[in-house]
Amino acid sequence: MSNTNPARGMRDFLPDQIRKRNYVIGVIKEVYEKYGFEPLETPSIENLSTLTNKYGEEGDQLMYKILKRGEKLKKQLRREDEVKEDDLADLALRYDLTVPLARVIANNRNELPRFFKRYQIQPVWRADRPARGRYREFYQCDVDAIGSKSIVVEVELISAVSEILNRLQFSDFEIRVNHRESLRKMVSEAGIGEEQTSDALVSLDKLDKIGAEGVYKELSARGIDQTAASAFLDSVNQESIPKELAELTRMIPQIKIDLSLARGLSYYTGAIFEMVLTKGDFAGSIAGGGRYDGLIGMFGKEEIPAVGLSLGLERILMIMEERDMFPDDLTTNAADVLVTIWNEETASDSLKLAGELRQNGLRVTIYPQPDKLGKQFKYADQIDVPFVCVLGESEIAENTVTLKNMKTGDQETLSVKEAIERLSDHFVTTDSK
Amino acid sequence: MSNTNPARGMRDFLPDQIRKRNYVIGVIKEVYEKYGFEPLETPSIENLSTLTNKYGEEGDQLMYKILKRGEKLKKQLRREDEVKEDDLADLALRYDLTVPLARVIANNRNELPRFFKRYQIQPVWRADRPARGRYREFYQCDVDAIGSKSIVVEVELISAVSEILNRLQFSDFEIRVNHRESLRKMVSEAGIGEEQTSDALVSLDKLDKIGAEGVYKELSARGIDQTAASAFLDSVNQESIPKELAELTRMIPQIKIDLSLARGLSYYTGAIFEMVLTKGDFAGSIAGGGRYDGLIGMFGKEEIPAVGLSLGLERILMIMEERDMFPDDLTTNAADVLVTIWNEETASDSLKLAGELRQNGLRVTIYPQPDKLGKQFKYADQIDVPFVCVLGESEIAENTVTLKNMKTGDQETLSVKEAIERLSDHFVTTDSK
Repeated sequence: MSNTNPARGMRDFLPDQIRKRNYVIGVIKEVYEKYGFEPLETPSIENLSTLTNKYGEEGDQLMYKILKRGEKLKKQLRREDEVKEDDLADLALRYDLTVPLARVIANNRNELPRFFKRYQIQPVWRADRPARGRYREFYQCDVDAIGSKSIVVEVELISAVSEILNRLQFSDFEIRVNHRESLRKMVSEAGIGEEQTSDALVSLDKLDKIGAEGVYKELSARGIDQTAASAFLDSVNQESIPKELAELTRMIPQIKIDLSLARGLSYYTGAIFEMVLTKGDFAGSIAGGGRYDGLIGMFGKEEIPAVGLSLGLERILMIMEERDMFPDDLTTNAADVLVTIWNEETASDSLKLAGELRQNGLRVTIYPQPDKLGKQFKYADQIDVPFVCVLGESEIAENTVTLKNMKTGDQETLSVKEAIERLSDHFVTTDSK
Repeated sequence: MSNTNPARGMRDFLPDQIRKRNYVIGVIKEVYEKYGFEPLETPSIENLSTLTNKYGEEGDQLMYKILKRGEKLKKQLRREDEVKEDDLADLALRYDLTVPLARVIANNRNELPRFFKRYQIQPVWRADRPARGRYREFYQCDVDAIGSKSIVVEVELISAVSEILNRLQFSDFEIRVNHRESLRKMVSEAGIGEEQTSDALVSLDKLDKIGAEGVYKELSARGIDQTAASAFLDSVNQESIPKELAELTRMIPQIKIDLSLARGLSYYTGAIFEMVLTKGDFAGSIAGGGRYDGLIGMFGKEEIPAVGLSLGLERILMIMEERDMFPDDLTTNAADVLVTIWNEETASDSLKLAGELRQNGLRVTIYPQPDKLGKQFKYADQIDVPFVCVLGESEIAENTVTLKNMKTGDQETLSVKEAIERLSDHFVTTDSK
């Protein structure tokens, strides 16, 4: 007997969880498509060189690398000198959906339209320390617009993601915005050297979690002197709107400028966003993104502007669960009807009846083997099936079926045709008939 | 500039490919659910110990292992003695969907119903040599029934998968069946030792690809003597129906007994199946599976019977593409309508119009920036959008919009309300209004 738990930080999803996930993913896809975004998927595994040096220091550390195989690995293991981590891997698991997108754009420039709007809903992997709501495999729901520097694109992205959150019944989200250019200015005006910009932003990004004092300490630890660190932290509390964001504020008046918003990833170059829930125990960021006009150019000949937003599916699902936000009519059972089996000889009759019911649009399961009727009802109860079709010897002889309503306990012997009509009226909507 | 191709054996899916994949996946899900199967998902990453020694020799070799990280890795790299492959990894990527299912069943026995029917549509990874139609990341669409030894379960699985193939318009598939028990008898009656059963079956499994002579050579290479190898190969041509399969043949008369069918994976214990296309250039297996009554017991305290079938999505898609089998009405464009932008000042008006059109159920994209009208039309053509809403200065002044039909070239200036009505009539079906 072995350990049957999923690996650390990983999850199995049982049917009810999948139905909830699919409901949320369905809403996200529908809205993204209504805004003219097209679906794209990329492989889970990328060449290591595609991913490294794109996310900043932390990203490189948390990446899952894949062990070389066969001769390539043997060659390394035979080496006399010291073997390094990077000698052992040339592939890695996708760390986000943005860097793979940049690679795809550079690789398919001539096949894709000049302005390319895509959405992508796939898992990513990060070897982070597992915590409440933080997993090592999790879905991102990204939406990106490629090819334009116009602010119209930022507005469309924010509108699409806002519409998704509204449709899912989130009423307390705030759209926080900052700009990498104004952050860079703050860093330099505080007297922090250009080479430490990234250090300063990574620290600032933790303000929510560790507070001003924590950030101050971290800045010091990273070798930024006291005066500069204080000046930098002070500048976050300015009231003025950075000029880079004036137009966006005009077009979406409800956005909130947040000068402390930094975002961890190193590829952002312009506006950066976060959608934050503000009420209750479950406050926090559920979407984020920004403009990254330099990333695609790292892969191709051309600099191509781009901007994107990513919805955190796991976070959204966790909060919807805790706030009880799923619609009441979400399917939660395996079937509309269970067909019983009387004995081995009548199994084919039960299979035939199940087939007829399915042809009429019903979701039908069959008890897999002959058994006491009581056990078959008990199972129907366990899997929460609302109706049972009992097909015993007398029913088969008379070409009837006994239909039992598991909720009321009522049962009635009907012709097969009547039973199908009764069930169809109950379950099958007009347009799917 | 770096290599922008996907890693070897991996693929990027552009929008039209995803739409085709989603169409096929949609049909598969719908049928599985009609048969009472419930959705389940498992993590991409499993503990290495979960996966090893389940698939046979080849499987263990083709598994993608994940490099240890941090201190765990450093410890290995510092070792004085020889470092082995298995010292460097304790995680691996999912190799199929059956072994993870067995782990989940063992882990959730009390939460799952006594008979559990699940489907699972997720990618798996195998470091196989890439070839036409063979990739290193590919989707499997599995359907499994847990908890019963009854043949009813085999019948239901074969019916469900047959219905999927029929719905996708495959008319030339054959259901081939064999039984591991009768294979084992053939092996032992040929005089091959029990310890070489797995060798003999792995070789036999290649009969289609390498022919009888090839199998004969491979059996010899694996140390099976000439007499035994010949006797074994002869026994495959028997005409009789193995007694283990008599009942299944009675219940599904159209199945074909194929005594040479072996299937590579080592966990099968009973009936094994393959769905094979028989016509044209693209013949070959598109689904396979079997009964594996021993696998779940390897993880838990209990032996639990199980049987499953797996549809090969990549193969199905490849053949549907080559045979031109996709429905004509599959959506192939990003939007129903493109809204133009006249200048920076009127961008908000265009955004507002796009919003109104979306509220009326239309899929709407917006040209992202002010540009010459000709360029905006050219782009609409490129992304294959059937209608363009031109919103110029005069239209804005008069609260109208010029609607251009990109197919006929006709254009007409209408009130916004009229334009919405016109477009809704064209695109929005009654029930989604």
